[in-house]
Amino acid sequence: MPELSNKSRIMPASPIRKLIPYAEAAKERGIKVYHLNIGQPDIKTPEVALDAIHNLEDRVLAYSHSAGIESLRKGLAAYYRNLGIDIGYEDIIITTGGSEAIVFAMMACLNEGEEILVPEPFYANYNGFAIEAGVVIKPVHSTIENDFAMPAMSVIEKNITERTKAVLLCNPNNPTGYLYSKEELYQLRDIVKKHDLFLLCDEVYREFCYDGEKHYSSLMLEGIGQNVVMIDSLSKRYSMCGVRLGALVSRNRAVIDMALRLGQARLCAPYVAQVAGEAALNTPQSYFDEVYDEYLSRRNFLVDALNKIEGVYCPRPKGAFYSVVKLPVDDADKFAQWMLEHFSYEGQTVMVAPASGFYATEGLGKNEVRVAYVLNKTDLAAAVKCLEEGLKAYNAKKL
Amino acid sequence: MPELSNKSRIMPASPIRKLIPYAEAAKERGIKVYHLNIGQPDIKTPEVALDAIHNLEDRVLAYSHSAGIESLRKGLAAYYRNLGIDIGYEDIIITTGGSEAIVFAMMACLNEGEEILVPEPFYANYNGFAIEAGVVIKPVHSTIENDFAMPAMSVIEKNITERTKAVLLCNPNNPTGYLYSKEELYQLRDIVKKHDLFLLCDEVYREFCYDGEKHYSSLMLEGIGQNVVMIDSLSKRYSMCGVRLGALVSRNRAVIDMALRLGQARLCAPYVAQVAGEAALNTPQSYFDEVYDEYLSRRNFLVDALNKIEGVYCPRPKGAFYSVVKLPVDDADKFAQWMLEHFSYEGQTVMVAPASGFYATEGLGKNEVRVAYVLNKTDLAAAVKCLEEGLKAYNAKKL
Repeated sequence: MPELSNKSRIMPASPIRKLIPYAEAAKERGIKVYHLNIGQPDIKTPEVALDAIHNLEDRVLAYSHSAGIESLRKGLAAYYRNLGIDIGYEDIIITTGGSEAIVFAMMACLNEGEEILVPEPFYANYNGFAIEAGVVIKPVHSTIENDFAMPAMSVIEKNITERTKAVLLCNPNNPTGYLYSKEELYQLRDIVKKHDLFLLCDEVYREFCYDGEKHYSSLMLEGIGQNVVMIDSLSKRYSMCGVRLGALVSRNRAVIDMALRLGQARLCAPYVAQVAGEAALNTPQSYFDEVYDEYLSRRNFLVDALNKIEGVYCPRPKGAFYSVVKLPVDDADKFAQWMLEHFSYEGQTVMVAPASGFYATEGLGKNEVRVAYVLNKTDLAAAVKCLEEGLKAYNAKKL
Repeated sequence: MPELSNKSRIMPASPIRKLIPYAEAAKERGIKVYHLNIGQPDIKTPEVALDAIHNLEDRVLAYSHSAGIESLRKGLAAYYRNLGIDIGYEDIIITTGGSEAIVFAMMACLNEGEEILVPEPFYANYNGFAIEAGVVIKPVHSTIENDFAMPAMSVIEKNITERTKAVLLCNPNNPTGYLYSKEELYQLRDIVKKHDLFLLCDEVYREFCYDGEKHYSSLMLEGIGQNVVMIDSLSKRYSMCGVRLGALVSRNRAVIDMALRLGQARLCAPYVAQVAGEAALNTPQSYFDEVYDEYLSRRNFLVDALNKIEGVYCPRPKGAFYSVVKLPVDDADKFAQWMLEHFSYEGQTVMVAPASGFYATEGLGKNEVRVAYVLNKTDLAAAVKCLEEGLKAYNAKKL
């Protein structure tokens, strides 16, 4: 039996997935498990998108253009211009989810073994994409003490080596929910410009900003138009995660040409998703207003409730639908597993995502977990209650 | 402006795509262009698949399992068992088209810089996938003189080095249409076993075999169960190329585990495609009978017509819907471009795919082109007439 590639030894198993068998076993024991761990919103897909799928007229679901259907690219460009981002449709490559856009960006910009700086904690799947692209993630620590704000520029610069080729930023951030300010982004801009790096900016949570704060796109940063590669997701924005539809956007012709060639190799992005995505661009504002109100109220509820638990600290993030929370435990991996394996409160328990999976630096985030507020408030309340009782029981057992 | 990765220098632009501007210019001049170059069938997507899309009941198009929807995997396993292939659903990872399955297979099995033997001519996008996976394709020449049969085992063995890790075979073959016999496959099996290589077998054209010949799957080869990774495509089989739905199938647990982790990084295969694919498994046999009759009659028509042209030789392939054809020209790239740029016959011309793009060895296939018989017979007849007149004119102008 031939030996697998070394990727099989370094490719991380999803840290959340390790807990799934425990969650399944708990359910088999009749325990209700609240999933604070997941990023799958319960928000309905817009009617216009579902209608487009139901009314699909094609008799042959043929390959579409490798760069994406032109009318979708044009519609998406109009969406960006509406946000004040001056982009033409030729600057856009439609991808199979934001995931593929990240892989394309890494493959286009970085050579094998070159380094990409990423503020940690970061979206765990960046690790997998980096391994696929053969590039090395260098984490730059951000900390819960200042709610995961942009690391100091001196710290970022200290991490730049001759192998550094890019910075990858997720804004608003998954897992922290942190929304980077225009000022922070301009500080980063100066570093990117000085060292002539690529700035890969994952902006899939753009529409999820709270407290009146506005998202500032990397594509609006002046003076680094050739350095910026923006990653977007229509499937995330329009709550149709499963259809897999994203985009890579850049004013750098060479990046777009390379992304197109990567796109040609896989022929096209999923066609029905593209049809749904083009229709979704016409989603009425009222849909987003409702989503905004719902998420804002869930966030406020969850953050307030968590901060009332002794020893717990939860920042009040201004974007996305996540927060990284400090718990009064020694090891959040063990705690998360214990909650599923040994704990229940009135026949219920809660699954959280240990933050260790979001840090690249060994030992960081040991007492942190990521929570998502994609459940309704009744369920959130029950989940927080379970967490509170679980923390008591977990810490009591060790005394 | 930062420099792109070296992938941008080696990633091939699709050879067919280079001709597209010439085809578009011809159309703008009012010339009708027959596309013998494309692999997009005009066959209708099965009604059961379209119905499943039209009747989709989900209100939230959520992420599905990273390995694919379980009922789809089980349905696909039943399809294989029906063909006499003993496979469980846990041996199957659903992918975003056959394309992703090939990339996953290469990444799982080969280290950076390791070599994969591929009979040439081969599907040009293998080059792109190999560059993405960081592996090296070593071509093994097959020749039109024996209709592109399996290269002699002595030739294959001569190409094996200490860096060789796998053989990649497309059966039935794109671009040649060659259907490898059970005997040829067992010869290859012996080599694979002797050198403990992976056998990656792309079987997306399995259902397209003619003249009463049966497809023999790599998964039926005895004694190399741990070496075989089979690549399949539902979107190709059910003429819904655009939805992007494929599968990676292997009895090797380690390969499946690694493919699952690659799958987890990109979350899931397109959901609507999976729903359509599961429904398509119930496509009635009458659909395939019709498709079979249509392709067989097109193939016979095209092959006969081409072989009547002086200096042209076209094998009569037993599978897929392509053939690689020898033309009486010095340089098929130049000829193909000339046909679009300077030639028309009664206001019509034809676009062929120069075979040079399907060879890795420089200089091979210079006088060959790939033709696909995915057009109806009236169009095929007009296309062949254009080709015949074009060849006359092209060769006359040089005298």
